[in-house]
This record gives sequence, C-alpha cells and structure tokens, in this order.
Amino acid sequence: MILLTDGYNDAHTAKTAICVLRYRPEEVVAVLDRQAAGKTCREVFRTGGDIRCVASLDEAPAANTLVIGIAPPGGKIPVTWRPIVLDAIRRRLTVVSGLHDLLKDDAEFARAAAEHGVRLVDLRDSDEHDVANRRGIRPECLRIHTIANDCSCGKMVAAVELAEGLKREGVDAQFVATGQTGILIAGGGCAVDRVIGDFVAGAAEKLVLANQHHDVIVVEGQGSLFHPRYSGVTLSLLHGVMPDGLILCYEMGRQAVFGLEDVPLASLDEMVEVNERMANLMHPCRVIGVAVNGQHVPRDDEVLAECQRVERRLGLPACDVIRHGPGKLVAAVRAVQAARGR
Amino acid sequence: MILLTDGYNDAHTAKTAICVLRYRPEEVVAVLDRQAAGKTCREVFRTGGDIRCVASLDEAPAANTLVIGIAPPGGKIPVTWRPIVLDAIRRRLTVVSGLHDLLKDDAEFARAAAEHGVRLVDLRDSDEHDVANRRGIRPECLRIHTIANDCSCGKMVAAVELAEGLKREGVDAQFVATGQTGILIAGGGCAVDRVIGDFVAGAAEKLVLANQHHDVIVVEGQGSLFHPRYSGVTLSLLHGVMPDGLILCYEMGRQAVFGLEDVPLASLDEMVEVNERMANLMHPCRVIGVAVNGQHVPRDDEVLAECQRVERRLGLPACDVIRHGPGKLVAAVRAVQAARGR
Repeated sequence: MILLTDGYNDAHTAKTAICVLRYRPEEVVAVLDRQAAGKTCREVFRTGGDIRCVASLDEAPAANTLVIGIAPPGGKIPVTWRPIVLDAIRRRLTVVSGLHDLLKDDAEFARAAAEHGVRLVDLRDSDEHDVANRRGIRPECLRIHTIANDCSCGKMVAAVELAEGLKREGVDAQFVATGQTGILIAGGGCAVDRVIGDFVAGAAEKLVLANQHHDVIVVEGQGSLFHPRYSGVTLSLLHGVMPDGLILCYEMGRQAVFGLEDVPLASLDEMVEVNERMANLMHPCRVIGVAVNGQHVPRDDEVLAECQRVERRLGLPACDVIRHGPGKLVAAVRAVQAARGR
Repeated sequence: MILLTDGYNDAHTAKTAICVLRYRPEEVVAVLDRQAAGKTCREVFRTGGDIRCVASLDEAPAANTLVIGIAPPGGKIPVTWRPIVLDAIRRRLTVVSGLHDLLKDDAEFARAAAEHGVRLVDLRDSDEHDVANRRGIRPECLRIHTIANDCSCGKMVAAVELAEGLKREGVDAQFVATGQTGILIAGGGCAVDRVIGDFVAGAAEKLVLANQHHDVIVVEGQGSLFHPRYSGVTLSLLHGVMPDGLILCYEMGRQAVFGLEDVPLASLDEMVEVNERMANLMHPCRVIGVAVNGQHVPRDDEVLAECQRVERRLGLPACDVIRHGPGKLVAAVRAVQAARGR
C-alpha cells in the first residue's frame, strides 16, 4: 500500500499512517507526501524505517492500494486530495479510507471507481442496528479496555502493545479494534464512532461476543468521557464492553483538549474517579494500570520520572509502552487473572 | 391524522400515539387499533377524550395522514403493520414514522409511495455530520434539560409541561425536541438518538444555537446515563446542551430498566450525583427539581405522598406534572433566573 498524508503529516492528524507504519511496515511501499518527498519515514514520522516519502503515485509503481492516512476532526477528505484519489482510481488502485465521509457516498469517486472497476473500502462503514442486550457474555473472558482524557493519546497503541505483550507470555489474548486505524492493523473490528448513537453500545457488545472465546480481550477505547464532542461514544463503549479492568492513557505535556484549546484536560485523579464511577454503573471494574505517552518528550529520563510520579500518586503501575514495553501492564492483567483464580 | 397502535397499545410502547393525543388532539381523527376498536381513546389511553379507536382506514375517511404511533426497542416496524401501511399509501395518505428503520429505506414502501405520489415522512431521519464546537453559546439563555433513570418515564412530557407553564407566566420559554414524539408535537427538532455517535453532541449544540434567542429553553432528554443501551446518547446530549439546570424524572413503581429486567434502576440520590458529576465536567449545573411520573398509580394521595417524600429526601421541589401541573418546576426555574439577576 501507499499511505497518503500529503500536507497533514503531523503526529496527531497522521495517526492512521503512523500506526500502519509501526504495525504493518512490511505492507507499505511508500508515503505520498509532497512536502516530505525524498525523506524517510523514520525522519518524518519517527517510525517506518527507510520507507520513502514520495511526491506522486508514479514513484510507487508497486502499490496496489492507496490508504487515506489521516483522521481529521469531523472526518472529511481534504479538497486538495481529490485529484490524488481520482488519479489512484484511474490507476486501478484499491482506495481505503477511515473517514466519516464515505468514499462510496461521494458521487465523483463512486463514478470513477465504477468506471475503472476499482474497489473503494470504507473502514468506518457499518450497518449496526442492534441494541445491547447483556446476554451471552462469558465471564471467564477477562475484558480490558483502554481509556483516556482526550482523543489521540495512545489508547489504540496501548491496547495493541498490551495484547501483543500478553501473547508473548503465552496468554490467549486478543486486541479488539473499535476505530479505523485499529481495523486496518487488526484486519477486523468496528468503527463504533460512526454507528448510530442508539446502537453504539450494541456494536461494542457484539465485538465482545465475537472475541470472548479468548482468555483476555483488550478493547481499544475511543475519545474520552471528558471530551465535549465524543464523550457519548466513549460511554457507550464503556457500557457495551463492560470491562473488568481499565488502562488509563494520557499524553505527557498535553494541557487542553486537542482542537478545543479552551477546554483543559482532566487530571489523572479525576480520570480514575469518573471512569471507575461510570464503568461500575454496569459491571465491577477498576483502573489497573497507566499508559504514559511520551512521544513528544525527547528525554528518556523525564518520561521515566513521570511514570514513577504517576505510580506513587495513583498506586498503579505506569509505563510508556513504546519506550519501556508493555511489561508492567501485562503484569497488571496477569495479577487480575491470578486473583480470579486463573 | 390517524394514529396506528394496532396490537401495541400499552402505555410504554404507544407513547408516541399517547403524546400526540395529549398535545395535538385537535389533529387526530381516530386511532387504528383492531383490539380496541369501538372504544374511546380516554378508555384505552387515558387521554384523547372521545376520539375513537377504529378497526380499519375505512372508518376514518377524513384522515390524510397515517402516523406510526409506537416506539419499540430497536425501532423496527412490526411485520403485521406492513399491509396497513401499504393500504394507507394506496389511499394516498401521507405516512409519518419515527422509527429507526426509515420508511424511505424500505424498498416496498418506497416503491408504493413513488407509484401513488405519496410522501413518506421519517421524523428520525437527519444528516447531522458536525461535531460540537462550544462556540457562540449565549449565556443569557437559561438551558434546562430533563434527565431520568430509564427510557419512557416522562422526560418529554415534563419538558413540554414546564415550557408551557413558563409561557403561561409570561416567560419567553421554548420546548426543544430531541426525539420523534417531541418533533411531532413541536413541529421541529432533531431525533438525536439516530445521529451518528460522533455527531450527537454536535446535533444537540445546534439545537441550542437555533433556540437560544429565547430566555429559557427546555431541552428534552433521551435515555439515561444508567441505561445499558442508550447511556452514550444521554451523555452526548448532556455535554452538547451544557444545561444550567436539570429536572430529574422517574416513574413511580418501576423497579428495573424497561426491557432489561435484570438491571435495577438507579436510586434518586445516585441519579442526582451521577448526572451532576457528568454535567459539571462541561458546565456548572445542578438538579433543580423532580418530575414524578405517577401514571400507573391510581391513587392521588399516594402520588402526593411520594412527591413529599422526594422533597424531604432531596431538598428539591417535586410534582407530577400531569396531576399537579408544572407550577413547582416553573418556580424552580424562575428562582434560578432570579438568582442570575434576571
């Protein structure tokens, strides 16, 4: 695949591209980004190694798939990208998008795709129309869920790393994707934020039912209970998943809600209190660990000191899963398993 | 209009029909309900006076509109109603529905409507695709919002009665509908529970922006923060509306979540605590009154005693808006206005 980030390659907006580069680099031919052309992905995105950024589709003839690599607020495709997408369709590349504005609903894209026999893949598309029923939940499957105080602060990465870490220790664990990037990495899941409000909890419950044959599932969180825009999706997910344990995620240095700079972020104590309160309305649940995202902090010692401060403050294990690995969170999950006699 | 409740005329399921009978009886010709045919609406629904229940469209030749009068969980049209709807279309009645399953998306209905030149009106249909931005909110407009511990326990009725009560006292107040029945009564609004999860708060904010030229808006609540299925919609609404004051609604005698009988209802104290906690994440807000729904309690003195118990327990005014009128809640809103110097 070739990933499209042209003009939007900051770490926040390009999170889809960055996560694909991190977790599926072997499938990426290049990144289409005119400003960054000639550089490596390591230089631009700090992951993806020597994969090149290129200025046009001509420079990546091996690609058979164009992936829209960004997640802008509101999920609309940038106008400047329309000619690039149409060019990809003319070249018969499959086009994959996780945006709210579906490719298939765009008359020009749909017409071009039909004309050239090209497949448009909308990761966010779904036809969820079922409410949650709380039936058939297997209590032996331990349900872990990642939560945060904002969007894009590492809930998906923490969930992927934790599931992988558990697997490395021989635990039958499964990452469960609830957003477009997670789906791209996992090859399945449901973008719950695009589901009709009444059916979000139902969609989350279905993901649990479909994956609960594993001993542990780690369900990716979305948004935040403190987010003015997306708190409802977060609560539906929390109530649909009915987690046994929560992993609290936040990004070091971030002060305000991304894109709403007049809304200060919740404190760690408030995050624990409010998330536990709301989760326990449905099912007994505790925060069991903290994933500190230090991606914008260059110094390792500062990140380590922050993790230690958090551990003292909350009495919970804390680590940066990218820098330190997920070991402490894996141990926290195994401790819950042990306490439950498994 | 003729209201369709055939086979589903219990107070919970037929709430759309019952509310139209209560608030727009002058527009109702009859109710189509074969089991209740021959009876009056007063006998069957305890509202709507002498409006007749009939067994077929033949008996209501004056009707030019068929209204689907129920709100079943999941919002699907009963199979037994399909011939009735098709018959109405053949007779060139406009068909109005508030169900999740849109009439226009039903191939058979859409074909029949096109053939007979009939309009299908889906009250729940919308194309909301904007996130909340928290810009342009007019602080001088007092925002009141109704909340509850379950679906169908009087949030819409309390909001309508409170707005009407305020108007009777000369206050420039407006009821704001967020569900299909409210829209049918108010002639406008947005069925927020059918909006895509990410955009529910945005849709709620738009309703505020569109109505905040009034001195007071009373925004109808949806679901409950304690509802396993719909809590996310409730939170999006709470965070999109950013109310100044909440009216807590509950139904006397109800013990468990309707349709999920193993889920006990939240207590009044818990309702106050959790709703205030979650509302205050965005904006300073207090519960200012309680709407006790005594529709299934025959004795007036029991309802009055319940209201007095609630007043003592919570230190808040409490009334059954249908039995007692909304006076106490009107006074509570006026007290907030006075405290804010208006």
